[in-house]
Order: sequence, then C-alpha cells, then structure tokens
Amino acid sequence: MEKSLTELAGIVGGAVIGDGSTKIRGVSGIDDARPGDITFIANPKYLKKGETTGASAVICAPDTALATKPLIAIKNPYLAFAKVVRFFHPPACETGSIDERAVIGSRVQIGKDVTIYPFVYIGDDCVIGDGATIYPHCFLGNSVSIGAGTLIYPSVTIRERCIIGKRVIIHPGSVIGSDGFGFAKDGASYYKIPQVGMVQIDDDVEIGANNTIDRAAMGKTWIQRGVKTDNQVHIAHNVIVGEDTVVVAQVGISGSTRIGKRVTLAGQVGIVGHISIGDDAIVGAKTGVSGDVPPGQIVSGYPHMPHRDWLKASRTIPKLPEMRIALKKMEDKVQQIETLLNALQEGE
Amino acid sequence: MEKSLTELAGIVGGAVIGDGSTKIRGVSGIDDARPGDITFIANPKYLKKGETTGASAVICAPDTALATKPLIAIKNPYLAFAKVVRFFHPPACETGSIDERAVIGSRVQIGKDVTIYPFVYIGDDCVIGDGATIYPHCFLGNSVSIGAGTLIYPSVTIRERCIIGKRVIIHPGSVIGSDGFGFAKDGASYYKIPQVGMVQIDDDVEIGANNTIDRAAMGKTWIQRGVKTDNQVHIAHNVIVGEDTVVVAQVGISGSTRIGKRVTLAGQVGIVGHISIGDDAIVGAKTGVSGDVPPGQIVSGYPHMPHRDWLKASRTIPKLPEMRIALKKMEDKVQQIETLLNALQEGE
Amino acid sequence: MEKSLTELAGIVGGAVIGDGSTKIRGVSGIDDARPGDITFIANPKYLKKGETTGASAVICAPDTALATKPLIAIKNPYLAFAKVVRFFHPPACETGSIDERAVIGSRVQIGKDVTIYPFVYIGDDCVIGDGATIYPHCFLGNSVSIGAGTLIYPSVTIRERCIIGKRVIIHPGSVIGSDGFGFAKDGASYYKIPQVGMVQIDDDVEIGANNTIDRAAMGKTWIQRGVKTDNQVHIAHNVIVGEDTVVVAQVGISGSTRIGKRVTLAGQVGIVGHISIGDDAIVGAKTGVSGDVPPGQIVSGYPHMPHRDWLKASRTIPKLPEMRIALKKMEDKVQQIETLLNALQEGE
Repeated sequence: MEKSLTELAGIVGGAVIGDGSTKIRGVSGIDDARPGDITFIANPKYLKKGETTGASAVICAPDTALATKPLIAIKNPYLAFAKVVRFFHPPACETGSIDERAVIGSRVQIGKDVTIYPFVYIGDDCVIGDGATIYPHCFLGNSVSIGAGTLIYPSVTIRERCIIGKRVIIHPGSVIGSDGFGFAKDGASYYKIPQVGMVQIDDDVEIGANNTIDRAAMGKTWIQRGVKTDNQVHIAHNVIVGEDTVVVAQVGISGSTRIGKRVTLAGQVGIVGHISIGDDAIVGAKTGVSGDVPPGQIVSGYPHMPHRDWLKASRTIPKLPEMRIALKKMEDKVQQIETLLNALQEGE
Repeated sequence: MEKSLTELAGIVGGAVIGDGSTKIRGVSGIDDARPGDITFIANPKYLKKGETTGASAVICAPDTALATKPLIAIKNPYLAFAKVVRFFHPPACETGSIDERAVIGSRVQIGKDVTIYPFVYIGDDCVIGDGATIYPHCFLGNSVSIGAGTLIYPSVTIRERCIIGKRVIIHPGSVIGSDGFGFAKDGASYYKIPQVGMVQIDDDVEIGANNTIDRAAMGKTWIQRGVKTDNQVHIAHNVIVGEDTVVVAQVGISGSTRIGKRVTLAGQVGIVGHISIGDDAIVGAKTGVSGDVPPGQIVSGYPHMPHRDWLKASRTIPKLPEMRIALKKMEDKVQQIETLLNALQEGE
Repeated sequence: MEKSLTELAGIVGGAVIGDGSTKIRGVSGIDDARPGDITFIANPKYLKKGETTGASAVICAPDTALATKPLIAIKNPYLAFAKVVRFFHPPACETGSIDERAVIGSRVQIGKDVTIYPFVYIGDDCVIGDGATIYPHCFLGNSVSIGAGTLIYPSVTIRERCIIGKRVIIHPGSVIGSDGFGFAKDGASYYKIPQVGMVQIDDDVEIGANNTIDRAAMGKTWIQRGVKTDNQVHIAHNVIVGEDTVVVAQVGISGSTRIGKRVTLAGQVGIVGHISIGDDAIVGAKTGVSGDVPPGQIVSGYPHMPHRDWLKASRTIPKLPEMRIALKKMEDKVQQIETLLNALQEGE
C-alpha cells in the first residue's frame, strides 16, 4: 500500500506542511523508521530525533518546526499516528463463517457475518451480534449475549447469563462470570454463598489477557462503556467500573467497590471492598487503597495518601536509619545539657 | 417457586416471628429487595434498613426487633440466607452424559452420572468419581483422579497424577500440577530440576479462576480439606495449605511453605519459601511475609510485623517529612543551646 | 531401573567415595529418602541429616566427610542431583503423531516426530520444528513459528507471527502475543493503538503457567535465550528480557523496559516502563522499581533503593511510632531548656 502525505493528512484530518506528494508506504517508531515510513512526535523532547529519523515524514503538533521533513500538523499527533497505523495494518479479515467443529447450543441467535472458529462451545439461548468473532477454545455458557462487532480471542470463558456489549475486545484466557468469592462461616468451615448474579460489560470495553471478572452474588458486576483493562486484572463480585476508566496490569479490586469514570488505576494496585473511588481519580502503582478516594484526587502508598505526601514520605524512608541515630544522639545531648543546667542552677 | 415463611424457616432451622404464612418467591440484598423477596441482616448497623426494605420478610439474629416485618430469627443469619439463596437457585442440572466430542484415554474409570462436555481431553488411566462434571476445554493428564461430585469449569488444566478430592470446585482457567519453579545453576545458565511430584487437593476445596498450583519437585503440593482460594492465586511447589484456610485474590506462596489451618491470607499477600504460618493466623492485604508467623497472630506490612504495630507505623509514614524537618530544627536548636551554655560556663 | 553408585557417578561426572557397587533405584529429598534412594546435600547446614537420612548414598561437595554413607563427590551437588532425577524420571514419551482432531491450517510446515494433540488449532503458514509437542487446546495464530524440541502445554495461546525458539517450554494457560496496552486519548475516551509487532522467544526459555507476554506495538517484545519465568508473570509490549534472567511469580514489567542478562526479579516485583535494569542486578520481592537499576546492584523497597538501605530502613519502620513520641518529648524538653536558659541569662 502506498499513499501520498496529502492523502494520509486527509484520513487523519491534519494539515500538510512541505511536500504533500511524498510517498508513504508504512509506519514506524522514530528510532526504527526508514525511507517510505511516516513516524510521529507527541513529546517535544523528541524534536531533535525528528531531524535525524530515517522516516520520510513526521506527524507532529501544529506549532512544530522541523526543517528537514515534510509534516502532518495536527493537534493530537499520537491519535493521528494510531489512525495511520490502523490504516496500514487493517484488522485481520475474518471468514464470516461458522466452523462445523464448533458446538452451538439450542435456540442460539447468530447475526450476520459472524465468525466462529473450531472448538468454540456456545451454550443454549445465546445471542451473537452481527460481525462478532469468536476464536477457538472459547466457552459461552447458556444465555450469554455478545454484541455486534465484538472480538473474543482464544480460550476465553464467559459463564451463563453474562452480557457483553458491542465492539468489545476480550483477550485470551480471560474469565468472565466466575463465581464471586463469598462464603458464610459454618462452624470452623465455610458454606458457599451461591453467586446468582452476572457480569455486564458495556460497549467499547477492552479486557486484557488472563483477567478474572467475577459474577455478582446478586445483581451484576458492571464494567461500563469504554473501560480498558490490561493483563491479569482481577475484579471481584458486584464491583462497578465507570466509563473510560483505565486499569493497568495485575490490579485487584475487591467486592462491591465502585470505581468512578475516567479513573486510572496503575499497575499492581489493590483496592479493598465496599469503597468508592471518585471520577478522574488516579491511583499510583502498587498503592493499597484502604478507603474512599474523592473525585480527582491522586493517591499513592499503602495505606493510600495524597500522592504528594507519599512522594515526600517515600523519599524520607531511606533516611530513617540516620534519623533514628540522629534522634538517639540528640536525646543523649539533651540529657547532658539538662545535667549541665542542673549543675549551673545548683551552682548559683 | 413460592414458599411460606414457615416452610423456609424449617429449611434453615430458624424460628418465625410474625406472620408465618407470608409468601416468599425470591431472595435479594436489602437495598434491592421487592415484595415477595426475603432478605437478611447480619450486621446490626443495617437494622434501620430492615424497616424500610422492600422485602416481605427478613432473616436476622434472635434478639432483633423489627416492628414492620415478619422475621426468621436464627443465630447465623448470613449462613441461613446462603441456604435460602441455594434453595431458590439450585445448581444447574447437568446432563449426566459423556459427549462424544470429548477425548477419553484408555483404561479411564468413569462413575455414575458423570457429565463430560465436548472438547474435554482425558488422558489414560484417569478415575472420575460419581456425579462429577467436567466442562469444555479441560485437560486431564494421565492418571489424574477426580472425586465424586467435583465440578471443573472450562479450560482447567490438571496435569498427570494429580489427585482431586470430592465436592471440589475448580473455576475456569486454573492450572493444577504445572512444574514447580526449580533450576540448578549450571555455569551462567540454569538446568531444570525435573518436577516429579504432584498436587493433591482434598475434599470440599474451592479453587478460584486462573489459579496456578505447581506440582511438587518430589512428593506433593497439598491443599487440604475445605480450603478456599480466590482468583489468580499462585501456590508454588511443595506448599501445604491447611484445612479451612482462605486465600484471597492474587496471593503468592513460595515453595515449601506450610500454611496452617483456618488461616486467612488477604489480597496480594506474598509469602517467602520454606517458612511456616501457624493455625488461625491472619495476614493483612499486600503483606510481605518474610519469616514464620506464630499461630493466631495477625500480621501486616512489609516485612510483616504484628498488625497493631503496622497500623501505628503506617499512620506515622505520612508524618515522616515533618518529623524530619522537626528533627533538623531541633538539632539546630540544641546546637544553639550548647553554644549558649558554653558561653555561660565561660562567663562564670 | 537400578544403577550402581559408580554408574551414576559416571553419568553426572562425579567421584565415588565409599562402596561404588551400592545399588540405587530412586532419588529423594533428604527427609523422605529410603534405602535404595540417592539424595543430596548442597548446603553444609544439612550435613547432620546426611548421617541419619534413610538414603543409601548422598551426592555432596568434594570436601564433605560423611562417615556413614557412600558418596558421589562433585562440585555442584544440586546440579548433579537434578541430572540424577532426570535419569530416573525421563520425560514422558510422546506419540510423535498428529491427532486428526487437531485443526491444521494451510501451508503449515511440520517437522519430524512432532506430536500434536486433539483440539489443537494451528493457523495458516505456521512452522513446527522437529520433535515439538503441542498439547490439547493450544492455539497458534497464522505464521507462528515453533522451534525444534519445544514443548507447549495445554491451553496456551500464541497469536499471529510470534516466533518461539528451540527447546522452549511454555506452561499451561500462558498467552503469548496478546495486544500491548496502548491507547491514544481521543477526547474523554481512548483510541486503540494497533499493536502490529510480535513476540520473539529465544532458545531454552521456560515460561510459567498463566503468563501474559504482550506483542510489541511495532517491532518485537523479546525474551532472550535461557530466560526462566515463574507463574502469573506479566511482560508488557516492547520489553526485552536478557539472557539467563530469572523472573519469579507474579512479577509485572511495564512497556519498553529493558532487563539485562542474569538478572533476578523476585516475586511480585513491579517495574515501570521505559527504564533499564543492568546485567546481574537482583530485585527483591515486592519491590517497586521506579527508575534505572545499574548492573550488579541489589535493590528492594518501594520506590526501590539499595537493598542494604532497605533492610535498615524497613527495620526502622516498626519503630516509627516510638520515634515520633521521642521526638515530641524532646521538643518539649528543648523548649523547657530554652525557657530555663532565658531565665538564667536574664538572671545574670
């Protein structure tokens, strides 16, 4: 595939600066780009690289001055780059057919142009929307619903009655709708609380690989529109994750907690149950959230605290041993001073 | 299904207070309950909600006074509620048949009323107990044994020679009997220690989704009766987890460690190898356990310490920067005092 | 199988001390060994056990004096023991045949003595090297390459264009080549950055169970020769892990980070993106690495610091409350002293 810079600018909605007839045949990162590639600069600190990159053109912000390269100038160069990558690497073309080695239950409604690979198991009464794709070794329990355009990678398990929206992507090995972790003490042992709710995943969500999202005890565990989870994320029963929230790898969210909209949970965060994290909050990596977080707040540490406090406190931690020694020394000194003072007073 | 309150009280062994003829058609949490539902109050702080809930009846402790609702009074309301949930939501009825699209090895012994779904692979010499259910995409290596009434959800891998007890539940994506992580240094590289032991899981254990429980180097990794693990738990080779212990999500237990009975390991705990955690110990969330924990102790922090100490220490951490400044100020002051004192002494 | 001690010494390259005709029929740990077994002592602190073990012979270091047992004396007893274990427990013999219930795409090249189990799905244009084994429920996307002698356990997903080397072992449930976690902000929502790179895993790597190794945004995520990962490890897009590095369970490595050679990352470590960890560095359990680590350094804590500093600092943490009280007391005392001094001065 080959496009002129002008054509690409049209696709992403940017303005050409320099030779619009420059031919572009591929996309690449700024260090690896070769002639024929287009690359991008989103961060001004890489501007110098823009002069020396092997790329034939650069996507960058409107006010950028690059002497040596033709440019596509646009407000959000990273987004424009993503669109150019998509253009040169369109999604794999699926067969739009249902392999006879899949098992499809009774009363399953399957839309148009659905691709179902071999070894898929679909239970009774499922609904599969138009253009959905289900890769090998996926399991859909009874009465599961999959929205139009949704893509389910291999070995995903979706248990009974879960509802998956449109244009959702679920990466391999993820488990949706496993039982919540609920037990009632029965003497020294435990009695299982039946987990009779389900999981609802709304449109445009992306779930990473090997996630586990438990079904609600009653009602639903709810992942709202536009949420993106990285790999190995664990979401417990009855949790709500608000729209456009980003959950980085290996985060664990305990039962019945509500995460607001546009929240960022960085890697390996752990969150206790039955709390609330406000819209637009940011939780730093490895934070242990032990209570509510107000909207817009940035928190870190364990237990969590305002991020600035954590930054200062964590910088102090390596100084603790010397602080302790200094404290000891001072205690001795103050005692000497007291003795001396007593002597002085008595001497008067 | 519809039952009178008196009938339900009989099922759970509680006493009716109020109108025993009240008709119950479902169960629900206290906030979501509607007429015809029964709900429960285990925690006295929710008593007020008992007056206003939409439920037609409430399960609560014997000494509870609720003016407006008929009650089932019982010592353990949560347990009774769990039993009522189970009553209104009986487990899915399995087919009790072996799908011809499953692969069953040679000399496999299969009990009565066993359900084996399509795409299950069972190796040679396996034993499957009466009433067991094995969902699609499960793998059982050679000589695996599955006890009666055990339920194995989709995409579970159980490698050769592992022994699974009765009434065990294994959630989707879990791996039982993968090789322990053992290598001998061979110059700069590593030589694999063959992991020739196995995993034994005893009766009434529940294993969450996407767990990994490694086989022993020699002998067995042993999960004892009644243990419950949440999702994404990792248990290394030769670990022993004692009866009725609860392991919350994303916990990791290193090799050869012994966990006692009735222990609670909260979320994201990490435990070093070759140590011992005593019966009834509780390990707080995110704790890094670096050595033995005596029976009954509650520990937290990293490295772990008694929970009370950790609570106090962790409350001090945000104060560290101001403590450091205070210390600096005091050092200056004490020096000034010393100078002054010296002057005073010399002046005498 | 039965071998004389002399024969076993020949196999591992050690020297017999004592009766070389001693018959050995198995291997065992020092506590569990019975007559006919051989065991080993790698750590001098277990020397006493060498006298009392039930084993018929012991593998130990050349300078070891054990009065009661015949020995194989060798520089690296643990490595020798591993080889003896391998000898008595040779790897399972595979069928060397391709099951007709596997799905094999078009133009797939399959080497000699390859074993492919039922329910394996192999896409178009894949290459499978001689002697490779692929267990049930594995998925290989289009154009995947698997090296000779590689062993892929059940339910492993390897997406399109990934390259796996020779003698690699991938444990069950691992996902290789899932999309990297990359999004460009598009207003309040996110636009997916197509992840068009792949994963390359070099020779002699072992990947634990339920790992997730994401494909590069562009170019490759690269796991170099001899790397060993434990279970539930997450490696993000464009990461490079250097030769013979060991990654313990539940570690997470963020995007574009470079890990050197012979590095050790202990359990539950988290590493930020775009940094570099030098050769031979050691990162302690649960460490949060927030920036570059120089070669050979040992770091711990969060944020990471030199391990010695962390040891000292972490020992101080439980003392924080009493330090705070001491500091308060001192402040009061110093104020009293100042008052007194002022009085003295005025009194002069």
